[in-house]
Amino acid sequence: MKILIQNATIIPQNENVDAEWFVGDVAIEDELIVAVGQVPDTFEPQEIIDAKDRILMPGFVNCHAHSAMTLLRGFAEDLPLQTWLQDWIWPAEAKHTEETLSVGNELAIAEMIKSGTTSFLDMYVRQDLLAESLLRTGMRGVLSRAVLTPEGDVEKHLKDNVELKYRYQDENLVSVFVSAHAPYTCDDRTLLLVREAALEHDMGLHIHISETKKELDDYLEQFGKTPVTYLNDLDMFDAHTLGAHCVHVTQEDMHIMAEKGVCVSHNPKSNLKLASGVAPLVDMLKYNITVGIGTDSVASNNVLSMIDEMKIASLLQKGILNDATALPAKQILNLATREGAKALRLAGVGQIREGYQADLILLDKTGVHMLPGFNPLTDVVHSATHQDVTHTMVAGRFLMKDRILTTIDEDKLKHDIKELSGFFG
Amino acid sequence: MKILIQNATIIPQNENVDAEWFVGDVAIEDELIVAVGQVPDTFEPQEIIDAKDRILMPGFVNCHAHSAMTLLRGFAEDLPLQTWLQDWIWPAEAKHTEETLSVGNELAIAEMIKSGTTSFLDMYVRQDLLAESLLRTGMRGVLSRAVLTPEGDVEKHLKDNVELKYRYQDENLVSVFVSAHAPYTCDDRTLLLVREAALEHDMGLHIHISETKKELDDYLEQFGKTPVTYLNDLDMFDAHTLGAHCVHVTQEDMHIMAEKGVCVSHNPKSNLKLASGVAPLVDMLKYNITVGIGTDSVASNNVLSMIDEMKIASLLQKGILNDATALPAKQILNLATREGAKALRLAGVGQIREGYQADLILLDKTGVHMLPGFNPLTDVVHSATHQDVTHTMVAGRFLMKDRILTTIDEDKLKHDIKELSGFFG
Repeated sequence: MKILIQNATIIPQNENVDAEWFVGDVAIEDELIVAVGQVPDTFEPQEIIDAKDRILMPGFVNCHAHSAMTLLRGFAEDLPLQTWLQDWIWPAEAKHTEETLSVGNELAIAEMIKSGTTSFLDMYVRQDLLAESLLRTGMRGVLSRAVLTPEGDVEKHLKDNVELKYRYQDENLVSVFVSAHAPYTCDDRTLLLVREAALEHDMGLHIHISETKKELDDYLEQFGKTPVTYLNDLDMFDAHTLGAHCVHVTQEDMHIMAEKGVCVSHNPKSNLKLASGVAPLVDMLKYNITVGIGTDSVASNNVLSMIDEMKIASLLQKGILNDATALPAKQILNLATREGAKALRLAGVGQIREGYQADLILLDKTGVHMLPGFNPLTDVVHSATHQDVTHTMVAGRFLMKDRILTTIDEDKLKHDIKELSGFFG
Repeated sequence: MKILIQNATIIPQNENVDAEWFVGDVAIEDELIVAVGQVPDTFEPQEIIDAKDRILMPGFVNCHAHSAMTLLRGFAEDLPLQTWLQDWIWPAEAKHTEETLSVGNELAIAEMIKSGTTSFLDMYVRQDLLAESLLRTGMRGVLSRAVLTPEGDVEKHLKDNVELKYRYQDENLVSVFVSAHAPYTCDDRTLLLVREAALEHDMGLHIHISETKKELDDYLEQFGKTPVTYLNDLDMFDAHTLGAHCVHVTQEDMHIMAEKGVCVSHNPKSNLKLASGVAPLVDMLKYNITVGIGTDSVASNNVLSMIDEMKIASLLQKGILNDATALPAKQILNLATREGAKALRLAGVGQIREGYQADLILLDKTGVHMLPGFNPLTDVVHSATHQDVTHTMVAGRFLMKDRILTTIDEDKLKHDIKELSGFFG
């Protein structure tokens, strides 16, 4: 399939292109971008999209999600963390069935497509179900089955996780990480099993690290080490590691993370909502740590909007650091697209660039809240909402056109969600 | 005109009603709400709206705006405050004409209607032009012409401002405050002239207070007083005072503000974006200070979305105070509606309540990012965007229906904005 998108305001995010934006065309052939800017006359498209009122940019890469939790949006709110988890979230999650997991996954994917996300990393149970949803919907995902020592069955969960990698190894849309839930929910044996699996099968490793001050304080008290130094002393970071949150990391931690190539998923909304704090994002970037952006689950967000995360990440660093120049629009857009793709080891993703995957979005630039339109980059970060995304393409296939999902029956999905009302309490 | 809105999910914000939400009907006659919940059979509507898929709540009250600055959205970004002001914003503002002010005002009003704001306070020049826009569009506004000592013409600007009050005293949609721009831009004589005008003509008084740490430090160094104690010693607070920002206020300041009935416009996004800091909102509420929410201008925001402000205000206090229970949805909704109305002295505004002004909005609750819909309050604060607002009514008149503006020609407005492209540079 050959598609030509014309007259778009392109934010390329191409690391080899200096221009922050320009007006031009993009040609897509099958799953790839084949030309950007000027498209040769010899290109014969089967479909032409006029994008003169649109911003075209790479789709967002969401580095930390628990997709099936979408069914718990608004279920438990404004509560202290431990009450929220122990009295509300964990008992609800214990009720999950294959049906609730699948409907929750599909709601998450629908919301991500509608908000311009074109790939994401998930950490949750039963990633086999999510793999099926990816193929059914055409979404790109990185799967990871979190293992926890108290849950038991560590070997089995890890084996299932690794097995998924081989089952889908020829599948462009599906890739697989291993995952240890967190240092404090995994004993050393579990952590080392996950590390070994990552190294043996050349898989990325996903883990929550230093989300709360309590976690840091507990580690300092119990081991005289931070969670980062604890994990480093176990050589966990020999694997390609993506740490979620990293709110309470020290300068020494960041030095280690940079040296060992540990990547970070920065999840500012969840960190604020659960009162975890504000991660030292600008510092991490000074250490040249690869940082992507994540939403975490809707239970602590309450949406999967990467535009929200960018806006709040940027505002927060400016406000907290007393520096209005911190996290300019171009930089935060990089994190939400190409840097996230690096963190997820998605080669050829996250840039509008010849030979790259055609994972891209169009945004309406004509809404009154987007006018007069001086600066497409700040308009996306600071003015747009996720509802300005009109088209979402993954691997050359439109999953949304003019706000209509093409691979998900939205009415049926809403019907299925209604049928499950009352299920969680 | 009699209008009946049926089967809505109502968030009443009525201070005499305990229920946070319920499903019911709302009857409107002329500019007033005449029944809520059960509407008597004797009510004979000329128009019926089915709102079974809608949340109905009071429209938002934006307590601090500089409307005509909408034309500078995205004009100067990610810059240090002084560079931003001196090299970009002030030179651009100096170019304003009647035409740019009017088009800017109309863009602001269009954006406010589309984002569910039904009344706002403006502080800027030429409020006579804005008054005309209010009447033309059906929007409710509180006008205030900021006076500054260096600008000169203090008496004239103040006289013009007061004159507006009398010109529009029989007009439901228009009310008028006086305004001193800020303590640091007004000498004592100017401040006292504004105070006298407020007291003589029974007008509210709007002023920026303690927006930046620099302002606080300068006052402490120069006068040994905070801006709040400085103004208090001038007896400024004898007038009904609405202070914008109040980011850097001390415990003693808050004590004085509570005692003197000083109200606050909390503008969290602007405070973050300009690197001013985070106001002690929870503390101010503990002192029983009346706090409303404001957007400030789009030049430092970049939108006029009260939903954005609520979301970020709430997330920020939770994250900064390390308390996930801080600023629950009900409380922040109160600030954005009925408390704001009190701050603006808009009697009978900001609640869905018999005898109150029919200033209300409907929001679509069926978007995928709003499902499954456990909690309409947190869904509005934490899941919705301003684009979920479908209908906006001011004083019983729909200014937007199904996202279509009824009193503003959106195409013509966009054309006018395009005609002005290049005007500011």
